[in-house]
Amino acid sequence: MAKNALYVQSGGVTAVINASACGVLEMARAHPERIGKVFAGRDGLFGLFREELIDTSLEDHTAIAALRHTPGGAFGSCRYMLPAFEQDPRPWHRIAEVFRAHDIGYVFTNGGNGSMDTALKFSQMEEKTGWPVISVGIPKTIDNDLGGTDCAPGFGSVAKYLATSIREVALDVQAMEETTKVFVLEVMGRHAGWLPLACGMAAEGPDDAPHILLLPEIPFNEERFLLRVKETIARVGHCIIVVSEGIKTVDGVFYSEQQKSETYGFEQLGGAGPRIADLIRAKLGVKCHWAVADYLQRAARHLASKTDVKQAYAVGRAAVGMALSGETGVMPGIVRVSDDPYIWRIDAVPLEGIADIEKHPPLEYVSADGFGITEAFRQYMRPLIEGEDYPPYKGGLPDFARLKNTLVEKKLPEFQL
Amino acid sequence: MAKNALYVQSGGVTAVINASACGVLEMARAHPERIGKVFAGRDGLFGLFREELIDTSLEDHTAIAALRHTPGGAFGSCRYMLPAFEQDPRPWHRIAEVFRAHDIGYVFTNGGNGSMDTALKFSQMEEKTGWPVISVGIPKTIDNDLGGTDCAPGFGSVAKYLATSIREVALDVQAMEETTKVFVLEVMGRHAGWLPLACGMAAEGPDDAPHILLLPEIPFNEERFLLRVKETIARVGHCIIVVSEGIKTVDGVFYSEQQKSETYGFEQLGGAGPRIADLIRAKLGVKCHWAVADYLQRAARHLASKTDVKQAYAVGRAAVGMALSGETGVMPGIVRVSDDPYIWRIDAVPLEGIADIEKHPPLEYVSADGFGITEAFRQYMRPLIEGEDYPPYKGGLPDFARLKNTLVEKKLPEFQL
Repeated sequence: MAKNALYVQSGGVTAVINASACGVLEMARAHPERIGKVFAGRDGLFGLFREELIDTSLEDHTAIAALRHTPGGAFGSCRYMLPAFEQDPRPWHRIAEVFRAHDIGYVFTNGGNGSMDTALKFSQMEEKTGWPVISVGIPKTIDNDLGGTDCAPGFGSVAKYLATSIREVALDVQAMEETTKVFVLEVMGRHAGWLPLACGMAAEGPDDAPHILLLPEIPFNEERFLLRVKETIARVGHCIIVVSEGIKTVDGVFYSEQQKSETYGFEQLGGAGPRIADLIRAKLGVKCHWAVADYLQRAARHLASKTDVKQAYAVGRAAVGMALSGETGVMPGIVRVSDDPYIWRIDAVPLEGIADIEKHPPLEYVSADGFGITEAFRQYMRPLIEGEDYPPYKGGLPDFARLKNTLVEKKLPEFQL
Repeated sequence: MAKNALYVQSGGVTAVINASACGVLEMARAHPERIGKVFAGRDGLFGLFREELIDTSLEDHTAIAALRHTPGGAFGSCRYMLPAFEQDPRPWHRIAEVFRAHDIGYVFTNGGNGSMDTALKFSQMEEKTGWPVISVGIPKTIDNDLGGTDCAPGFGSVAKYLATSIREVALDVQAMEETTKVFVLEVMGRHAGWLPLACGMAAEGPDDAPHILLLPEIPFNEERFLLRVKETIARVGHCIIVVSEGIKTVDGVFYSEQQKSETYGFEQLGGAGPRIADLIRAKLGVKCHWAVADYLQRAARHLASKTDVKQAYAVGRAAVGMALSGETGVMPGIVRVSDDPYIWRIDAVPLEGIADIEKHPPLEYVSADGFGITEAFRQYMRPLIEGEDYPPYKGGLPDFARLKNTLVEKKLPEFQL
């Protein structure tokens, strides 16, 4: 007997999370004997509590296929973590009620560490509430800090976009070095340094940009840093710096927070990027430019990595395949077989043990001085930014999917979280 | 008798100024009977004073061709304006000396308003110093505020990049609107509002992003603005704002400057973007994200407009053609023949009268409320972002030109500006 399925986008969205959605929906549609309708939670898990379920069966094939090249989260997302049953059983019972009301037997949670914890809890629904559901997580995070997978879909595309931007901007700054000596780019990844490291791929030779990477894992030492900036300007003529939004002082305080409280004593604008630029201006007296990419980087579908799009789509399909094999409490993890040629496969990885663990880059990926990358990192990173996967354009701009997002009729009374 | 030529990149560089260089060099190489070597000023006009001339004849055809897809300024640039002869004849005499020493009979100045003033002055070299030189300007500016041309090469590509980024980020914010209500993007164009207007192209329907554009030409009215943000959030669920780095208060002060002095009384980080976000947070109490694209936008060759690249290349070629016809004190200006189909031609435009004038968008391009664009602007803008011109990629990243940039032997004593 076919059961309905629920697909949920969870946490911050990416340039390729909709490619995973595309994989889920196309694979589910290929198995009508086992999977009835696929509902999508409107605004992620909130849609479940509000009983706001999008009926994806009303979208035509072309719209679903276009999800593959559409950034953002087509059904909406939110940041929510299901508490332990013992702590608060109410949300669990509500979810079971919604599952029962809409005959949902499969749930696919597409997200990062926190979301995989929720996916794991979904796999315990029968034990806790009596309603049986097969739960499969689908990996997604631009931060690449998710365990159980060699890389997380979403990461490769941001990496490609940022490394490309650094390579481009370096040519600009080099041309303008008579006036501008320093350029600072602030990138995402509050806790793990994967994204600043990825920027290091822009360099081909030893003095190519970026010249300094500031990772959240390495306490920021102002003096050492300024010395390196000075040396770089003297040797190269200019200095390109990539800073994680989450760098911390030696006292373990976020660098941006520290400035706020200690230096100014009141709420300050801007993050680590402009602060670093300000520090250089004040201490070295050179002209700095800075940029903060913020959401632009994780939405930049116009420069997605082909590997990343392929993997995002593949984990979506694989998740449905696992569910159909009766596997629950698992996530399709990407396993690297070889670097060059790049060969990978997908394994079912138990969610137990990967949920809520942050995976940091290993030490051998960071150069001895802490400011750069190693050949080992290049080997890891190279295939992940390989290939271009351009969206179609219309009138000079990308032509993204537009879904109807029609809600299913509600059957239950309202519920307040 | 063949004379040598000088090519100079001047002012801020762009994603396509090297395409103009490519046009100049390829056209010059096709006329060896008239043009000997083409030298390029290292770091722009400074190279002239320092007698640092790059011998482009040492670059092979492949490298020159690759300039077409390479951002930045391949020979370096600077910000310098030649003073009037009557005010300071020293630099004029130095330039004439360098021209004579290297037998330079043609000079091509590739830049914006200020640079066209210098190009005009080059055309007066014979009259002032006795050394005859044919001077042709080549239009370039991402700001699109250059007169004598329907559009300036460099603008279309930034416009395409920014409008694409807005369309992408809007999908991200829409998905995340349960937490993030507002996104602010700060764009370049300190004096003219062409770039924020171009972002308006991202919208297809009335409530599509961007919802509010803040132009430097329209005094910033905090109250009206905040009201509009509030209304937009209430109606759409979120609000996407594009702000020019150069918006001014009703008193004519730069908004970023005003905040610094009046509110905080000391040097502040960040520009108009983070300040606008801060204002919204403080007054409306909603969560804001903001990005500052800075140099990323003008270096983003990975998403160049095909029209723009074509025109940048064409004005480079045309400049040499004009010089060969003996025209001096002119600039190849782009003349629009029709919007749809987009037909354009290049005319020789006298530099007299266009140098140092800022071209602002006409009133009929701005919606009545001052926050958006009109159909007239769409008609103007549409062809300028049309088509994609992707650079080649190698190992997942763009493969840009690498020139040798070998300097010609010096023949003159040193000179201090």
